[in-house]
Amino acid sequence: MSPGGRRPGKADTREEIIAAAREVFADKGYEGASLRAVARAAGVDAALVHHYFDGKAALFTAAMSLPFDPRVVKDGVPQESGPGSGAAIVEGFLTMWDKAEGTGSSFASCAAATATAPNVADAMREFVIERIWSAEPARPGEDKKLFARRRALISSQLMGLAFNRYILRMPPLSTATPRALGRWAGPTVDRYMEGSLG
Amino acid sequence: MSPGGRRPGKADTREEIIAAAREVFADKGYEGASLRAVARAAGVDAALVHHYFDGKAALFTAAMSLPFDPRVVKDGVPQESGPGSGAAIVEGFLTMWDKAEGTGSSFASCAAATATAPNVADAMREFVIERIWSAEPARPGEDKKLFARRRALISSQLMGLAFNRYILRMPPLSTATPRALGRWAGPTVDRYMEGSLG
Repeated sequence: MSPGGRRPGKADTREEIIAAAREVFADKGYEGASLRAVARAAGVDAALVHHYFDGKAALFTAAMSLPFDPRVVKDGVPQESGPGSGAAIVEGFLTMWDKAEGTGSSFASCAAATATAPNVADAMREFVIERIWSAEPARPGEDKKLFARRRALISSQLMGLAFNRYILRMPPLSTATPRALGRWAGPTVDRYMEGSLG
Repeated sequence: MSPGGRRPGKADTREEIIAAAREVFADKGYEGASLRAVARAAGVDAALVHHYFDGKAALFTAAMSLPFDPRVVKDGVPQESGPGSGAAIVEGFLTMWDKAEGTGSSFASCAAATATAPNVADAMREFVIERIWSAEPARPGEDKKLFARRRALISSQLMGLAFNRYILRMPPLSTATPRALGRWAGPTVDRYMEGSLG
C-alpha cells in the first residue's frame, strides 16, 4: 500500500464496480453492456465482477439502485394470469416499493434518474422489457405485437400508481394499503393481460 | 436608471415574476401561495403580476413550465363522462403533451422537476387536485372519498401512459397515435370514472 493511498477493501471494490457499471449501462444500454466491459472500465478482473454480482441483471439493479432481485419480480408477475391476478400484481409491485421507501432505492430516486437522463431511461426500458417481462411472448403462437402492447400497458398502470403514490403523494393512492390499490386497479391489469384492447 | 444597472424591460419583469413564483409555490404550496406574495418576492406591484398573468393558475403553469392553460384541460376533462369519454380524455391528454415535446415544457422536464423536489411535488399535487380536477365532487351528493379515489386513479393511468411514452419510451406506447392509446386505455378511464371500484 502506497503512503497516503486508500486502503483497498471489499466495499471499495464493489462500489467501484457499481460506478463503472453505471457508466457502461448508460453508454451501451442494458443489452449492449457486458460484465467484461464493466470489469475493464473498473480496472478489475472479470472474475471479481462475477464474485460480487450474480449476472448482468443483478449488477444492473445495483447500479440503478433498484430495490429488487429481478428474478423475484419475473417469477411473480407475468406467468400467473387469470381472474384476480391483476390485483396480486398491483399489490406485490407496491409492497416492494413501499419497502424501498426512505432508502436510496426509492421509487422517486429511480424515477428522477430515469427522467433526467435519456440514456438511463434507455437502459431502464431494455431492462424492463428483457428482465421484468421477457422479450418474447411466453405462450407459443401468441402475437408479438399484442404481447408488447399488453406489457407496455401494464407497465403504464403500475408506474402511474407508483408515481402518484410516492412522488405526487396523491390521496388516497398515497395512503391506501397495497391491497386496497390492488382491488381498485387490479381489473385494469387483468384487462391489459387478457382482455380485448380495441 | 442607475449607471451599470440593467435596462428594465418587459421580458425581464415577466421572468423575474416567474422566478419569484417558483420560490413562493415551492415554499407555500399551490393553495398557500398568493399573487400578492409573489409580487412582494419579485419586488413589483401586485397590479403588474395581474397584468402579466390571468390569475394564480396561469402563473403556476408558467412557473412549472406546464404546457397548457388549465382552464382548457378542466373544461375538457372531468365534466363530460359517458361511454367512450375515457378514450377522448386519454387522446386529449397525450395530444397536449405530444405538442409540448422538445420544448422546455416537455413531460420529462415536468416529471423530473416533480420527482427531484418534494415541495414542487406538493405544489403540483395541489394544482392537479384544485385546477385540473376540482376539490369537490361535481355532482351534488356524490361521495367525496369515492370522488377523490376516481380522480387519483384516472391521474395514475394518464401519468403512467405519459411516463412510458415520453420518458421510458416503451413501444408501442412511444410510437402509437394518441387515438390508438385512447382506444387501448380509454376503458380503464371509463371504469375509474363511473364503474365499481371494489
